[in-house]
Amino acid sequence: MPLDRRTLLTASAALTGAGLLPDAPARAQAAPAAAPPPVTRTLAHYLVTARFEDLPATVRSQGTRSFLNWMGVAVGGSRQPAVSNTIAAMLPFAGKPEANVMGRREKLDILNAALVNGISSHIFDFDDTHLKTIIHPAGPVASAILALAQHRKVSGRDFLNALVLGIETECRIGNAVYPSHYDMGWHITGSCGPFGAAAAAGKLLGLNEEQMAWALGIAASQPVGLKVQFGSMTKSFHAGRSAQNGLTAALLAAQGFTADTGALEGRDGWAQALARAVRWDEVTEGLGSRYEAALNTYKPFACGIVSHPGIDAAIQLHDENHLTPDQIASVTLHANPLVLSLMGKAEPLTGLEGKFSITHCIAIGLIYGAAGEKQFQDAVVRDPAVVALRRKVTVQTDPAVMTQKSDLTVTLKDGRVLSRHVENAIGSLEKPLSDAALEAKFAGLADGVLPPAQAQRLIGLCRGIETAPDAGQIAAAAAMV
Amino acid sequence: MPLDRRTLLTASAALTGAGLLPDAPARAQAAPAAAPPPVTRTLAHYLVTARFEDLPATVRSQGTRSFLNWMGVAVGGSRQPAVSNTIAAMLPFAGKPEANVMGRREKLDILNAALVNGISSHIFDFDDTHLKTIIHPAGPVASAILALAQHRKVSGRDFLNALVLGIETECRIGNAVYPSHYDMGWHITGSCGPFGAAAAAGKLLGLNEEQMAWALGIAASQPVGLKVQFGSMTKSFHAGRSAQNGLTAALLAAQGFTADTGALEGRDGWAQALARAVRWDEVTEGLGSRYEAALNTYKPFACGIVSHPGIDAAIQLHDENHLTPDQIASVTLHANPLVLSLMGKAEPLTGLEGKFSITHCIAIGLIYGAAGEKQFQDAVVRDPAVVALRRKVTVQTDPAVMTQKSDLTVTLKDGRVLSRHVENAIGSLEKPLSDAALEAKFAGLADGVLPPAQAQRLIGLCRGIETAPDAGQIAAAAAMV
Repeated sequence: MPLDRRTLLTASAALTGAGLLPDAPARAQAAPAAAPPPVTRTLAHYLVTARFEDLPATVRSQGTRSFLNWMGVAVGGSRQPAVSNTIAAMLPFAGKPEANVMGRREKLDILNAALVNGISSHIFDFDDTHLKTIIHPAGPVASAILALAQHRKVSGRDFLNALVLGIETECRIGNAVYPSHYDMGWHITGSCGPFGAAAAAGKLLGLNEEQMAWALGIAASQPVGLKVQFGSMTKSFHAGRSAQNGLTAALLAAQGFTADTGALEGRDGWAQALARAVRWDEVTEGLGSRYEAALNTYKPFACGIVSHPGIDAAIQLHDENHLTPDQIASVTLHANPLVLSLMGKAEPLTGLEGKFSITHCIAIGLIYGAAGEKQFQDAVVRDPAVVALRRKVTVQTDPAVMTQKSDLTVTLKDGRVLSRHVENAIGSLEKPLSDAALEAKFAGLADGVLPPAQAQRLIGLCRGIETAPDAGQIAAAAAMV
Repeated sequence: MPLDRRTLLTASAALTGAGLLPDAPARAQAAPAAAPPPVTRTLAHYLVTARFEDLPATVRSQGTRSFLNWMGVAVGGSRQPAVSNTIAAMLPFAGKPEANVMGRREKLDILNAALVNGISSHIFDFDDTHLKTIIHPAGPVASAILALAQHRKVSGRDFLNALVLGIETECRIGNAVYPSHYDMGWHITGSCGPFGAAAAAGKLLGLNEEQMAWALGIAASQPVGLKVQFGSMTKSFHAGRSAQNGLTAALLAAQGFTADTGALEGRDGWAQALARAVRWDEVTEGLGSRYEAALNTYKPFACGIVSHPGIDAAIQLHDENHLTPDQIASVTLHANPLVLSLMGKAEPLTGLEGKFSITHCIAIGLIYGAAGEKQFQDAVVRDPAVVALRRKVTVQTDPAVMTQKSDLTVTLKDGRVLSRHVENAIGSLEKPLSDAALEAKFAGLADGVLPPAQAQRLIGLCRGIETAPDAGQIAAAAAMV
């Protein structure tokens, strides 16, 4: 056999392995004309030098809200089969039970706890969203460092600083490669998440700059997640495994395990393999002055975001008019056509199908004044009162109506007409979920998982993370007793 | 803020998450015109039905040789810092110490053992090679299932069948996406390895067809490895982590953890995200009749493959003529220019640099009749006799000389001229390493790690894997006592 190109690559691969020779194979497409900036090292330098004291108050506040929201969804998802199956699979091999699983009795080693809590936090698709990238930022980061905080004591200040830095890291990297990375098929929470988890865990482990660059490098070699998995348990696995991968990367780097210190930007590096175009200034510019972590948002409702303006209007009318279903003659929603094309299921039969039915969403908003996981249970979707009301809902679409807006009109049997215009749906950047609404969301998620008093205490602990003496104690407070 | 494309994708992502709606974002490039065949399910069906009895004798024999070679490199690499650092990082969180680390005293839980043994087996770049893809096949697979065999008893027959099926799986998937996948930056051993490990572990766990498809799907979401890491410890991490990821995937699938059953070929699936072109028939055609596992090769020498024809010639002259360095006046190697461009280091100072010096390689072949790890130690590279001889070596390059060929001429001080033409270097598919040479390689790697008698016994156990009552006992026999 003549040695063909492949065999030569074999040789080349072996030789470049030692870093003594430049690698020979032709570059992939989209090679930048100029050498990229030292992105990995720049980020590492920022991460090891960034101090809690430097965080603006708004960023600290948003970090706290991200943590509270994460805790709510992690507790809420904790009884789902994806969580139980993972625990069943991993428990025979798990190590020292140092770290709690939110909302459950089991304790696991910190790496498995990061995996399981990350899964739990993503199951309902009800976690936080960085709208520019669709990254769900807290899952990979908080799952990793809360577990770590049960292995070595971490103050609330240090925890919050690490959480913000981890979120900042993954969202900035996401910005740099969005949208081509997303379009290629990557589930961006899992593929960028390991960077966030590595950065945050590395910060808490006190890595120096070179070790931090190694941690980011080891994380770069472990992206998780393909969009093909949407609809299976593996979607939520992505959030958990990315937490575990980033934590693993930081633990290895702390022991001197080396990686390339240009793994993000280098030839044959992360961006080359996982994106078709990249804007490195999204990572390197304004570090410490511009915070992506301040742009995190929290879904108020447990369904697709295009339905949120209509639900918002329905809940406002419910709250102000104390409506009962039998008062209502007809309902009309004016909305963007996307609402029907994405959520047009007219006769949902299950809770999951209810999440894809705008008429169900409007009906529960009017009847319950809420649209949490509870309102998407099978029993609610099949409730005759709900079924009757949603059949009275007409959706009129108009491309001129922006997707964050809605007009809802409710005609009562007594002839009165109630209407509500929503300019920016609750939960958007312009109209963020209030702290009270965030706590109500938390309570709804925890209902049936933790006793109400424990849930309320847990809310208080999360709110007070900034002054907590020991962040790990919050994890213990989230366990079923 | 008007809801822009990103926000709409948020909605779309949430909605498609439940599998109720087709996903909206535009496809990446290279979308196949027709729907791809059900690759993941076809592979899963093959894997669950393939029997040991169906394996041709040549395939069984090659599987045994792959296992023996893997064991040698895993033992040989076991004292390297990448292994020690990983154990130091993971031991505080490791679970039940059921599984041995090859060549060492520590026992770890099976998932960590898979990680560490996989790292160990790849450190020297001396492991097996599937030349068509540059995959090092045994690392991800054997590391996973030998650990698993210490958790539940596995017969040697079942072990060998699973090993072959795992190697078959990763190499076929590699064939399907090579070379675009490799060119994008992926270290193909780590990115295809999880499939091999999942397939083999899933086979031993007795997964049914749907579970096997899930296991392959969970593996698809966890590719490991970028070529940018070549030169750092993270290169060998790729082999270990892919073993651990595949084993994790199989364990999860066994507990009912679901994944998309078209994760390889589906829209937003593995091939879309990780390759620019794909040939699915490489995966699906000839399953059970054509074996990539029969095409595995084993490096005889611990350095770049382009030097092997020259070293082969040098060792032949050494063996036949009982040369001593002081007899030699001059040496001339005729070889392909690639030999110098990849291995042109004239004055190496360290063992690692010696691996990139063709003159060093020729010198040690002539002096020692060997080119194993020992001949690339710092002390050998600096040995005055070696230095003196390598300065007598001249390399004449000629593009007409194919890279697998060489002509070596040694002129002795007494005027005699010895020469040797190598048509196909030892270790190539055409001139595979003999069983005796494979055992000598093993013994050289184990020297200084395990007592010679233990190494010899271990060779026998690996050779006899096909009739071993309990494969896990071989792992125990590879531990330092």
